[in-house]
Amino acid sequence: MSAELWRPSLDLALHRNREHPDARLVQLATIGPDGRPAARTVVFRRFLDDPRALAFATDARDAKRAQLEADPRAEICWYFPITREQFRIAGLVALVGPDAADPALRRVRDEVWTALTDEARTRFAWPTPGEPRDPAACFPDAAPDRSTPLGNFLLMTLSAVAVDHLALEGDPRRRWIHEIDAQGRWTGREVNP
Amino acid sequence: MSAELWRPSLDLALHRNREHPDARLVQLATIGPDGRPAARTVVFRRFLDDPRALAFATDARDAKRAQLEADPRAEICWYFPITREQFRIAGLVALVGPDAADPALRRVRDEVWTALTDEARTRFAWPTPGEPRDPAACFPDAAPDRSTPLGNFLLMTLSAVAVDHLALEGDPRRRWIHEIDAQGRWTGREVNP
Repeated sequence: MSAELWRPSLDLALHRNREHPDARLVQLATIGPDGRPAARTVVFRRFLDDPRALAFATDARDAKRAQLEADPRAEICWYFPITREQFRIAGLVALVGPDAADPALRRVRDEVWTALTDEARTRFAWPTPGEPRDPAACFPDAAPDRSTPLGNFLLMTLSAVAVDHLALEGDPRRRWIHEIDAQGRWTGREVNP
Repeated sequence: MSAELWRPSLDLALHRNREHPDARLVQLATIGPDGRPAARTVVFRRFLDDPRALAFATDARDAKRAQLEADPRAEICWYFPITREQFRIAGLVALVGPDAADPALRRVRDEVWTALTDEARTRFAWPTPGEPRDPAACFPDAAPDRSTPLGNFLLMTLSAVAVDHLALEGDPRRRWIHEIDAQGRWTGREVNP
């Protein structure tokens, strides 16, 4: 398998698992403020024009925002249930809010907001995540307008620097590691599963 | 919900998701040797007698062994597809090999080995994971004896210190955080989802 093939392999996995309701759920690992590892499930939204960049959404009030501002290193673990493949994608995360400098990224932020379900948009209008639940607090049912993101809606991009692709089907399993060098060239190799 | 209820909640989730083929897959986040977060899928095997300890298996030749020996802090992210619940369980990992001091843990190691499928036991006799794949290398089909673990088979235990339980069903979603104090007492609180 040639070095640049992790994106086509990932595209193929997305296609072959497209009927599965959880095919776009990935686990995002970060470093917490105390240096502890943290992991939570996030929804893959789309790719960026840069083929090695993946887009997710998060709430500016969420704990992972402070974690990622302190240390942008992250790894996602993406398991595809139908084809039984795992992609581990390590890279750097950037958070894109309404004041981001790059107009192209601000536009992607708008587009991702617009593409959210009503239910997903509604949650950005809820009380601050992780704070004590007040039984009297209001959790609105009505979704915010889909044309303009709320200020606490952040686009979260992961720019890959290394990809570990494990295919559990096959006898034996197969595994490939792809890494980017300082010149931005990908090299890949097959390794023992 | 009272403070000690994360284990019953987890037991209930395991029961309600028992028909799902991926209900025992969890993502384990650790800190890599370079301080980067790492995440990979592992299979939940069982609980220990200590109700806050979960057991997994790993290969002593795998990269996560060195990571966990350098820094035993870890967090698992466990998503249950049928009930749409997520448990994030942070804690400390211990690795149990054939020379472990505690006879009870050595016995659990033996039991987990015996309970593995033939396919899972076979992989411990394969070439070293992560090393370059030699096309001529042999990947045996025959499973090692189920009565005695191979030397590179490690029991991996996670002893919980904090649990973040998110239930996506319900309107609104609900979320609870449970933490253990220095006296070993659990306290829990409901927080905003």
